[in-house]
Amino acid sequence: MEKLTIVKVGGKVVENENSLKKLLIDFTSINGLKLLVHGGGNIATDIATKLNLKVEMVDGRRITNKEMLEVVTMVYGGLVNKKIIAGLQAHGCNSVGLTGADLNIIIAEKRPVKTIDYGFVGDIKKVNADGLVMLLNNNIIPVIAPLTHDCKGQLLNTNADDMTNAVAEALSSYFKVRLIFCFDKKGVMLNQNDESTVIPILDKNKFSELVKKGIVNAGMIPKLENGFKSLDNGVSEVFITDVNSFSLEKPIGTELIKN
Amino acid sequence: MEKLTIVKVGGKVVENENSLKKLLIDFTSINGLKLLVHGGGNIATDIATKLNLKVEMVDGRRITNKEMLEVVTMVYGGLVNKKIIAGLQAHGCNSVGLTGADLNIIIAEKRPVKTIDYGFVGDIKKVNADGLVMLLNNNIIPVIAPLTHDCKGQLLNTNADDMTNAVAEALSSYFKVRLIFCFDKKGVMLNQNDESTVIPILDKNKFSELVKKGIVNAGMIPKLENGFKSLDNGVSEVFITDVNSFSLEKPIGTELIKN
Repeated sequence: MEKLTIVKVGGKVVENENSLKKLLIDFTSINGLKLLVHGGGNIATDIATKLNLKVEMVDGRRITNKEMLEVVTMVYGGLVNKKIIAGLQAHGCNSVGLTGADLNIIIAEKRPVKTIDYGFVGDIKKVNADGLVMLLNNNIIPVIAPLTHDCKGQLLNTNADDMTNAVAEALSSYFKVRLIFCFDKKGVMLNQNDESTVIPILDKNKFSELVKKGIVNAGMIPKLENGFKSLDNGVSEVFITDVNSFSLEKPIGTELIKN
Repeated sequence: MEKLTIVKVGGKVVENENSLKKLLIDFTSINGLKLLVHGGGNIATDIATKLNLKVEMVDGRRITNKEMLEVVTMVYGGLVNKKIIAGLQAHGCNSVGLTGADLNIIIAEKRPVKTIDYGFVGDIKKVNADGLVMLLNNNIIPVIAPLTHDCKGQLLNTNADDMTNAVAEALSSYFKVRLIFCFDKKGVMLNQNDESTVIPILDKNKFSELVKKGIVNAGMIPKLENGFKSLDNGVSEVFITDVNSFSLEKPIGTELIKN
């Protein structure tokens, strides 16, 4: 199977002109087929504030009412996504910006209200790989914004990490997938203040041990759990790293492996 | 050659929930391959005003400074475009939202400053039909927002009518293209206040005559001139109509024909 590199970057990387420039150069330098998923970042909050909308976050998740959905649709699907596309085209990378509604690639359902009503937030139900496979087989780079739809006309604000895992797993039937999560640290670290303590290779046993010891923190736990799940579901390689080394032949950071 | 219907609708149609609903149903009912181009509309002005940006129009064209470009990128490329996509998917129409930067389909250059500096406004240089042909051959409906790029990383606000003509002409090498411009009148009318005076068939001679007599007004002249040019450049049929009849086997309105 042909190799496919899937990179997830946070919205913050894309919002800053300089880090965006570097991202585009590094992403361009990756050989072979590739796909980018980007997060939201803070512009949506800035614009919502300027529009006098109330910004509410619960555990880092955005409460998305009708007006906020319009803002994230504008910012993630329009501003951020199209800036990346124009930038990639300038580097000769033929790319196309997508939400989960485009080509019907990611279908979600509005999160049921339990204790918290997240509003128009989507939980992923299904990935249709066909459209993505067609694009990749035509050497076109899909760039995915963190929005999905419910097939009934409703767009839904959706977690970019979840979308990345789901897309990587679906595409692993067609390609040998390397999945790279870029975040703000060099990898999973034994000491959060010392980058020399990055754990180069992590399996589930070691991960459980680190969770028990309280070394792996709350926000990191679902990211790693989903990474291990993706390995179980067909993804060949999963790396956790920062934006400085993701494009290397062998990224520096933490590689997740099966036991 | 296979038949392809290209429909241009103004942003106003898409902004209003009810007219958007009707548009989606009618567009869905068109048989065979199809492509939609949408204009901008007034939401960009509303949002710019809320963000305290100065809105400047000259002869109906928007002066697009850096901040205004961000607004139109958000609104046209994000909000308006993705609402259409989610709506079409709900009707079972597999579609993808594009700007000229996506798939590198429309390359423009920043309009040179003569008497007026329009800012980040693009004049179309080239259409790359490949990406659109690939999508259409896979039964995917391209939905194009009025933005292009300069291949150097710069997005450009671009006239939706011009984009429609350029795309129709480029695709006429691959398909038998019917081009339909939907605007707010039933067609070209002898008396602007009497819809029963719609001219069903218009050739260049008759058009010149109407211009001389002052019956065809300023805004309509370039629309019609470009329509005749598209006929000369390979497009099979050009109609000017409103949103009520564009999906008919034979649209009611004004058909442009060669002399």
